[in-house]
Amino acid sequence: MTKHNDTGIEQIHLLDRCEDSYGGVRVEIKEDMDADVMKADVFASLLRASISSWKQQGKKGVWIKLPIKSSHLVDIIVKEGFRYHHAEPTYLMLVCWLPETSDTPDTIPDNASHRVGVGAFVLNDKREVLVVQEHSGRFQGTGVWKLPTGVVNEGEDICDAVVREVKEETGVDTKFVEVLCFRQSHKSFFTKSDLFFLCVLQPESSAIDKQNVEIEAAQWMPIEEYAKQPFVVNNKQFNFMANICLVKADHGYPGFNARATTTRGGKRNYIYCNKPEIVDNFASLM
Amino acid sequence: MTKHNDTGIEQIHLLDRCEDSYGGVRVEIKEDMDADVMKADVFASLLRASISSWKQQGKKGVWIKLPIKSSHLVDIIVKEGFRYHHAEPTYLMLVCWLPETSDTPDTIPDNASHRVGVGAFVLNDKREVLVVQEHSGRFQGTGVWKLPTGVVNEGEDICDAVVREVKEETGVDTKFVEVLCFRQSHKSFFTKSDLFFLCVLQPESSAIDKQNVEIEAAQWMPIEEYAKQPFVVNNKQFNFMANICLVKADHGYPGFNARATTTRGGKRNYIYCNKPEIVDNFASLM
Repeated sequence: MTKHNDTGIEQIHLLDRCEDSYGGVRVEIKEDMDADVMKADVFASLLRASISSWKQQGKKGVWIKLPIKSSHLVDIIVKEGFRYHHAEPTYLMLVCWLPETSDTPDTIPDNASHRVGVGAFVLNDKREVLVVQEHSGRFQGTGVWKLPTGVVNEGEDICDAVVREVKEETGVDTKFVEVLCFRQSHKSFFTKSDLFFLCVLQPESSAIDKQNVEIEAAQWMPIEEYAKQPFVVNNKQFNFMANICLVKADHGYPGFNARATTTRGGKRNYIYCNKPEIVDNFASLM
Repeated sequence: MTKHNDTGIEQIHLLDRCEDSYGGVRVEIKEDMDADVMKADVFASLLRASISSWKQQGKKGVWIKLPIKSSHLVDIIVKEGFRYHHAEPTYLMLVCWLPETSDTPDTIPDNASHRVGVGAFVLNDKREVLVVQEHSGRFQGTGVWKLPTGVVNEGEDICDAVVREVKEETGVDTKFVEVLCFRQSHKSFFTKSDLFFLCVLQPESSAIDKQNVEIEAAQWMPIEEYAKQPFVVNNKQFNFMANICLVKADHGYPGFNARATTTRGGKRNYIYCNKPEIVDNFASLM
């Protein structure tokens, strides 16, 4: 937007932005912004002037985070050459790659592509496995007993998510032991992929107090009985995973343990690997 | 939209939709739709009438897939109570949960939450590891030699992605052997999480033909020299992973192999686990 100040010199107002470490700029539209700026025509002028200025400065990627309450501005931003990058319930992220020469190819990073699920293999000292029947979904009304499963929340560690799901669905307290195997599948959810981690948990309580919304029934069931259900035997993937559980129960199949570590920035992460203590011992000998 | 036909009886036109197996409906707005329907006011009436009809039918979740070319309709859909679910460059997916009673809680599935990356540990028979220096990003200009890494494309298998990345960055042909370990990290990319799989690959060629856009340099480097770089030694995660590589090179650390399998629907998937042949042999004895 162009304004004239006291001196008569034209001032060009631009959108507030911060710069990223890849030569790009990030704009966050706030819900409490000046009502004038939020008007479609004023915003369009501001955006156009800003893009022009960023181009002159040699900026590359431009990100605009737009809250859902400003959905009336989506069309204006798209008309200025932006595409969608990702969306969450409360906001839409739009992006535009400014350079027009072929020696500066678009390096905008991809969107998140995978959902992450977990399944729990919880075996007690009577060789009984913790199983559930679900109210809805593909197993509804089939009578199939399955391992407790769930989706990893945003920002949640796999080793915490699986313990939480077992507690929520069955009321049983457990401790994470290791990842037995994982499966990657595609187009499981619109065009998105899925990573499913089957984990061994050690039970720390036995009384079942099932959750009512998702779970029809929960029980401890002899492991062979679980593995011999026709649905499990006839489904290649379920059968293979049930066999891993049987091998684990009887022969000490080696999975991946969780090893806590920290990033340069001090955040705690987990690396999942075979026997982290072997790696540590090896390193101490070097 | 309400129209009167020859008989004088009012006909209510609704949006075309298909039903999903969870009691919901899915609407896909097409770019070649009737120009009249794409007008904001006509579309708003149609949407309102459709929602009213779906509520009467006891429908639960309503999904609307809107191409970016119809971004002028985003605001209308949001005003009718929809929220964003996810977005890709060419479309926005909006969703609304119709039931208003507390005994039918919102069970709309979460959006994809993770990006998936891969790293390659390629060791030749001279105990040299394949390493690269990158043009941009956090390692730019640091002189750090790192393992080739990349992002798994939508719909791509981890075991294929890592072979592709090595070929693209260095020109070296390889064969996937196993996953050595994986790391989960959070808020790596806006609010999204990241899963990084470190894989062992067997080299099938040795000549390096590096890619120019992302890669500054590529070479075969003695594995101890790689592991002793100050950056690797001082970064807990890089150091731990380098040690896993050293253990693997010298002591046969057990990773997870890829086992091809098929879903009920006939799609090919991979399950990654320790020695699949043990699982198969065990199963054949049952």
